[in-house]
Amino acid sequence: MTEFDFKTLKADGKAAAVVNHVAHEEMVAALFEKAGVPNRQDARAVAKTLVLADLRGMDTHGTWNLVKSYTGGLMRGDINPRPNFKVVHETPSTATVDGDRGLGILAGRFAMSLAMEKAAKVGTGSVAVLNSKHFAMCQAYPLMAIDHDMTGMSVTSNGIAMVPTNARDAWTGTNPIAFAAPADKEPPFVLDMATTVTAAGKIGIAKQWGVSVPDGWFAPPDQSASPLHAGLSRQPPVGSTREMGSHKGWGLAVMVDILAGVLSANGVPGMLPPNAPSGHYFQAMRIDGFRPAADFKRYMDEMLRNIRSLAPAKGHDRVLYAGLLEWESEQKRRREGIPLPPWTVEYFRTACAELGVRCAF
Amino acid sequence: MTEFDFKTLKADGKAAAVVNHVAHEEMVAALFEKAGVPNRQDARAVAKTLVLADLRGMDTHGTWNLVKSYTGGLMRGDINPRPNFKVVHETPSTATVDGDRGLGILAGRFAMSLAMEKAAKVGTGSVAVLNSKHFAMCQAYPLMAIDHDMTGMSVTSNGIAMVPTNARDAWTGTNPIAFAAPADKEPPFVLDMATTVTAAGKIGIAKQWGVSVPDGWFAPPDQSASPLHAGLSRQPPVGSTREMGSHKGWGLAVMVDILAGVLSANGVPGMLPPNAPSGHYFQAMRIDGFRPAADFKRYMDEMLRNIRSLAPAKGHDRVLYAGLLEWESEQKRRREGIPLPPWTVEYFRTACAELGVRCAF
Repeated sequence: MTEFDFKTLKADGKAAAVVNHVAHEEMVAALFEKAGVPNRQDARAVAKTLVLADLRGMDTHGTWNLVKSYTGGLMRGDINPRPNFKVVHETPSTATVDGDRGLGILAGRFAMSLAMEKAAKVGTGSVAVLNSKHFAMCQAYPLMAIDHDMTGMSVTSNGIAMVPTNARDAWTGTNPIAFAAPADKEPPFVLDMATTVTAAGKIGIAKQWGVSVPDGWFAPPDQSASPLHAGLSRQPPVGSTREMGSHKGWGLAVMVDILAGVLSANGVPGMLPPNAPSGHYFQAMRIDGFRPAADFKRYMDEMLRNIRSLAPAKGHDRVLYAGLLEWESEQKRRREGIPLPPWTVEYFRTACAELGVRCAF
Repeated sequence: MTEFDFKTLKADGKAAAVVNHVAHEEMVAALFEKAGVPNRQDARAVAKTLVLADLRGMDTHGTWNLVKSYTGGLMRGDINPRPNFKVVHETPSTATVDGDRGLGILAGRFAMSLAMEKAAKVGTGSVAVLNSKHFAMCQAYPLMAIDHDMTGMSVTSNGIAMVPTNARDAWTGTNPIAFAAPADKEPPFVLDMATTVTAAGKIGIAKQWGVSVPDGWFAPPDQSASPLHAGLSRQPPVGSTREMGSHKGWGLAVMVDILAGVLSANGVPGMLPPNAPSGHYFQAMRIDGFRPAADFKRYMDEMLRNIRSLAPAKGHDRVLYAGLLEWESEQKRRREGIPLPPWTVEYFRTACAELGVRCAF
């Protein structure tokens, strides 16, 4: 599997349609309104977050995968279309928010905004969320912070996919961590990583494209695995094996469970029924709580340029930092449109026809 | 190298001496006083932190490796024996501290205490430190927080060891991350991980024991590597290869550089001369800023017990969580003493004779 190429997971060059991001947002927002979101503002916020993932090339967490699942959840009643977000506990720099089983994107935006308000007042804000649903692209929330000269962080625990180091069965989710910090002229640093070897969605998209993925993306099958877990995807923590550090990926995943599941009082995936509500955690820090923001951003520019100019190892073109490819994708797709694969085009055409929404392509 | 066993890096069973931790602390504190630390209280705090690493089996970050390097640094003037820690910037929940080139352990304890004071007042505290030196075991600082019903976090960037994904030369440090959270009756969760595949100290200790380590602990040699970097240890980020997620370890390392080096205004290893001062970052969060601490700790107990009772995969004894082995080591070594390898015994005997300190063994 050495010939595996990450680019083969993208639609560029073999798209069934290419859509302008503004038109796409409008269509997606209209679908969410038809699926039960009671006001245009919320429907737009959800659409914007999903289309931002499309723009940034995070195709696993954009409209391809998630519109169907979220609108389906709303229409089935798994997701509450009219959530009442409640701050159930609070100090000047912390809060816990009940997400009322609403769309995770709306709970996430509410909680990250609250974290940023607290940071504006006292320096930092940390907000845990319980009783929420899948919140799409983890980096969406830290990205809200960097425009206000803050660093941002978010984590979520959801579903069962990771087989802990030494364990037979999967126990927790892919438990992603996102962290972002602004620069001045350079594209910002935006880390967004599952604590498994790869994001669950990548495996699904690879299957849809008919692309095979590296063997190491799956935990070795265990003949003795509990039948309860037989149907689940089994992924090793980042690090792959104990010898090469999988206990670090596993440790990070439990840290995420503690922040998103235990601090929030949501509970953690390994101890909840399937499809249980999900927990999140968000943090914002005012950069000028530490040093003048202009100085920070100037140094970030220098550092990120320094990284981009590092000599590549033989066989590589260039050295990257987290967020750079996503920024490049965003520039390109804002200009040229978002490429959509055949199954997504088909889904949207059908959904638009059924719900009476004008299709954007 | 599949027969590599982490236990072969420990001294248990082949120690040249076994020392009681209280006697060891006293000797180490006396050595620090002779090396220039001007008061007993600081010398004891440094000794306690290093011996805690010995107790917890973090042999790479205890008295074995670090007493010689720290006392040498003090006597050579690389480390300032009389630092004046200054809060150079502050909000209710944040601060930046100038470590005045003193012992990193003292700067770390000062900054973590400040973070905890802020957390006690407003919910959380985040403190960045510039102009400091090596701060020993990363988990030492989060461990200070958990006794006060807080979560704790610390990171540091120091030295050059990690070869970034796709890069030819090493650029940043092993950039460790530690995070701890208390439980009620169960041993606490304590993650303490280098963002490289392994900690640099482990490679050094393996060499001293004559134990070979897995090939994958080193980045592949690059014939074209810059001669400037030829003598340095070259370690891949956790994840090992791009395909298996090394960009995640690399991304976490840059996140650490941003928190410890850019927020603090210390600068980052890849852009500083060798042996430059080092930056740190600490965070403390009051658990009852989110939910009652007793409820949190009760759920932690349930979760950690649940993890410990997971069915192991074939060929494994049991499933662990971060901090469990360290807790077991601490119980055993508090009872039975700390085993020291021959070269450490020899070093302490010589140093005690030279500086006029009574040797504890």
